[in-house]
Amino acid sequence: MPTSDPHRPGRSISIIPLGGVGEVGKNAAVVESQRDLLLVDAGVMFPEEELLGIDLVIPDFSYVLSHADRLRGILLTHGHEDHIGALPFLLRQLGRRIPIYGLPLTLGLTRPKLQEHRVADLADLRLVTPNEPISLGGFQVSFVPVSHSIPDSASLAIRGPAGVLFFTGDFKLSAGDNGARTDPARLQEIGDEGVLALLSDCVRVDRPGRTPPERVVAETLDEIIRDAPGRVIITTFASNITRMRQAIERGYRHGRKTAVVGRSMLQNLQVAEELGYLRVPPDALVAVEETRGLPADQVVLLTTGSQGEPTSALSRIAVGDHSVIKLIPGDTVVIAATPVPGNEETVARTIDNLLRREATVIYPAIVETVHVSGHASRDELREVIELLRPRFCIPIHGEYRHLVLYRDLAVETGLPPERVVLPEVGERIELTPDAIRRRGHIPAGSVLVDGLTVGNVTNVVLRDRRHLAEDGVLIAAVAVDRETGELVGGPDLIARGFAFGDESLLVQATGQVRRALKRRPNMQVEYGYLVARIKEVLGHYIYEATRTRPMILPVVTEV
Amino acid sequence: MPTSDPHRPGRSISIIPLGGVGEVGKNAAVVESQRDLLLVDAGVMFPEEELLGIDLVIPDFSYVLSHADRLRGILLTHGHEDHIGALPFLLRQLGRRIPIYGLPLTLGLTRPKLQEHRVADLADLRLVTPNEPISLGGFQVSFVPVSHSIPDSASLAIRGPAGVLFFTGDFKLSAGDNGARTDPARLQEIGDEGVLALLSDCVRVDRPGRTPPERVVAETLDEIIRDAPGRVIITTFASNITRMRQAIERGYRHGRKTAVVGRSMLQNLQVAEELGYLRVPPDALVAVEETRGLPADQVVLLTTGSQGEPTSALSRIAVGDHSVIKLIPGDTVVIAATPVPGNEETVARTIDNLLRREATVIYPAIVETVHVSGHASRDELREVIELLRPRFCIPIHGEYRHLVLYRDLAVETGLPPERVVLPEVGERIELTPDAIRRRGHIPAGSVLVDGLTVGNVTNVVLRDRRHLAEDGVLIAAVAVDRETGELVGGPDLIARGFAFGDESLLVQATGQVRRALKRRPNMQVEYGYLVARIKEVLGHYIYEATRTRPMILPVVTEV
Repeated sequence: MPTSDPHRPGRSISIIPLGGVGEVGKNAAVVESQRDLLLVDAGVMFPEEELLGIDLVIPDFSYVLSHADRLRGILLTHGHEDHIGALPFLLRQLGRRIPIYGLPLTLGLTRPKLQEHRVADLADLRLVTPNEPISLGGFQVSFVPVSHSIPDSASLAIRGPAGVLFFTGDFKLSAGDNGARTDPARLQEIGDEGVLALLSDCVRVDRPGRTPPERVVAETLDEIIRDAPGRVIITTFASNITRMRQAIERGYRHGRKTAVVGRSMLQNLQVAEELGYLRVPPDALVAVEETRGLPADQVVLLTTGSQGEPTSALSRIAVGDHSVIKLIPGDTVVIAATPVPGNEETVARTIDNLLRREATVIYPAIVETVHVSGHASRDELREVIELLRPRFCIPIHGEYRHLVLYRDLAVETGLPPERVVLPEVGERIELTPDAIRRRGHIPAGSVLVDGLTVGNVTNVVLRDRRHLAEDGVLIAAVAVDRETGELVGGPDLIARGFAFGDESLLVQATGQVRRALKRRPNMQVEYGYLVARIKEVLGHYIYEATRTRPMILPVVTEV
Repeated sequence: MPTSDPHRPGRSISIIPLGGVGEVGKNAAVVESQRDLLLVDAGVMFPEEELLGIDLVIPDFSYVLSHADRLRGILLTHGHEDHIGALPFLLRQLGRRIPIYGLPLTLGLTRPKLQEHRVADLADLRLVTPNEPISLGGFQVSFVPVSHSIPDSASLAIRGPAGVLFFTGDFKLSAGDNGARTDPARLQEIGDEGVLALLSDCVRVDRPGRTPPERVVAETLDEIIRDAPGRVIITTFASNITRMRQAIERGYRHGRKTAVVGRSMLQNLQVAEELGYLRVPPDALVAVEETRGLPADQVVLLTTGSQGEPTSALSRIAVGDHSVIKLIPGDTVVIAATPVPGNEETVARTIDNLLRREATVIYPAIVETVHVSGHASRDELREVIELLRPRFCIPIHGEYRHLVLYRDLAVETGLPPERVVLPEVGERIELTPDAIRRRGHIPAGSVLVDGLTVGNVTNVVLRDRRHLAEDGVLIAAVAVDRETGELVGGPDLIARGFAFGDESLLVQATGQVRRALKRRPNMQVEYGYLVARIKEVLGHYIYEATRTRPMILPVVTEV
């Protein structure tokens, strides 16, 4: 039925995840009607080990860029890097001022990030009030406070032409020890009004039961701090404001002062303090240097390095390489975080190094309750489906196996399997009031950031890096006469990262190349032939001698 | 008190771990009296991600080599790679025939490995009988059968001049579903005779309680195989004979035939079959090709790839790239192993890929009992201490944190802390009947194997590989006149693995180098100066433009 209502052109909404599905990180999703486009989050992903040399991975925003005229705003669910970290890159590409909506701490953490990247003038940061709908084109958006590991986290209820979309954002039901908690009554209410589609966090769907409340961590830290004979060094994510607050508060309660080590942690804490998320007396915090004058049992140190990052404060402390903090007898180190998948080994190595220096080390494998996740477990996810009673379910924010398990869960609650759609990055999912359809793909994927270079790290570059990493490089430089093609200089062989063992191998290889080239004197120079011949002769000789294949780079200079 | 008994010169024994302490893998330990030397195990370690391009890590055997005249034999506790894999390298270095002792399957798995490396003639493989002491110089050694994830695993009771050493080897107390089990009565008996030192596996000391018996895995596999609508593809370690046997037996019970995919798995299974460790009817096994003619619900496929190894059969199946096995609707894939630390991500990616192809995937996070560890948990480790009542405890085979936790456990059983010694790789621990002492270090550590190259991969090579992996390489080749030092060719710039984005960057960089060199015409060639100048100019220019630091390699060819 055609309609003349300009707010309901076609009565459909499309959702296109730009990241976060089939991967953890770079959360971003397009919500689109015929007239209007919203972007929910713009996060980064930290590169996997195999992305050699890559600093960051961001979503491919080209669809947003090519429809920037319809972009009504960017909605930020909370202030974690994997939800806000790609904003500076997006704003620079957009090149124009765009409204960005969020709760106070989220915007508070976004601001310095944009300043650092010198794109603050492109951002029109607009504070929202919880549960008060704002209009963005034909959409009405409400920020619904939820519990997560950072204050001011929100779900989004987005009313559009086809109905209400509910983006959970990162959340859990259990209380967050920061005032905020997810309010089941509010979800029930939204469910009563009718939810077209639920777009849910599902990264912990493989954990049965419920995520324990933050309170248990506060109590565990309290006991550790109370009983520790010396300093307590607590490490967590620089973004985990809740965990930092717990450490400072519990330290203060037991007569200790906290010093914060690490630039990112200090910066985040300062923002949280200014916005009133830290309610501790001013003398609870001291500078690191001041802790030297305090008895050990009156000190808490809060540091980064919970993931064993080699350059973090904790890793340096663990190998005795920190400029200010040296481990002393009686120190207790608390790893108040679990390793992100892929970081297990570096975390384990940090723990081992701390133990070698005779620190007492407390980590989740030993005392489970030094950390709880910020994400909902299986029973909480089920409860949210039951409260909201959506017509359709689209799991987002999880590895592919999490999406599959979430579909099973949704089906368990009574939803027919065909109403649960597992999207791919860049896939357009179209919703009408009574149907959900896959509508093809837009250009999307990963953009690699390496230094100032955004998007230029191609597969060829990565393949070369892997080859270099595996077997190193062997350069064979020759100078040839530009007229006669005769070899007039070299071959000079230079090896890097190639384990040739014995210098004589290079001497012999040089001879091989020289002989191979000498066989064709007085010919017109054939650059391609020379390069191919050097590669062939050298590659064969080296492989026979070492059973390795370094990258062979002939360099032919004409003189 | 001096003594004339030649079997008791000084009444001391030294133990020197050559690996396995503060690390998992390359298990090997020297047991030494004044007259005699034994080596317990000679295992490999699989390299950590940061050891770029390295194939294997083996212990530094130089101490054994320089005391080879006293080496009475090599004792193998069981047939896993991390206990036998370094034998070929050791034998080649020793260069003479040496007796190697073990139970049947251990030697059965060792033999083809030595043949493959063409060192079989250097090994004098000697079968031992369980619990029957053999004399090796002044030592008497008993192989005491224990339960582990491979049949014919043994602990070693070594009687030497100072008393009895008990090496647990890898073990657990719970039954191994392969006939063998650790016999507490036998341990009690050995304890009654008096144990000087217990050298214990401790890699699972952080798990409370007891490791579940293998039976639960057999039952779980039985249910999965019974209920699966189509083929069941089971993946585990190629060395986990027990798990393979369970799969084949349970498959057969439900009218299925098993095909084994993967060379290492086939080879191990063949050895196990020849030695009678597989008691299945001959028609239980078929070739992979033959499964095509069978109904899907009559097929079990047993494959390698439980660690997500990129070239394994399962990884290829998961991306649709296996030459023979293609996933079909109804396939169930069982990952009957847990990821070794560091492999979590590759395993997860394999699971995701299988799910994308709509296989049903069962893995330990979903159904815990598709795998149990081969190692003793905390309560079992405690029980062994209590049965053996050793005077001293030396935890081996564990990360440093495991050694620390094991010390805590030993102290809990009543042992004074000073009687528990945590050794380092290469540290000599000397035991007399009533004392334990640290006696300095011998040369020891890791030897890196890269292709045919053993031990030539230096830290410089690894550092270069890391640099190349991170930012790539930029080569600047110039030809200079050998007499005048004048630039007569180049600069030619070649980049690999360096993301320069735009060709114009290289053009401009070339100009920079040319100008820098042109400033000093008609000078005697100064090779060092030219190289340093190119590095400086190019490095500065590239960093300013890209904020990355590729390896800069000037190549100066004289003509």
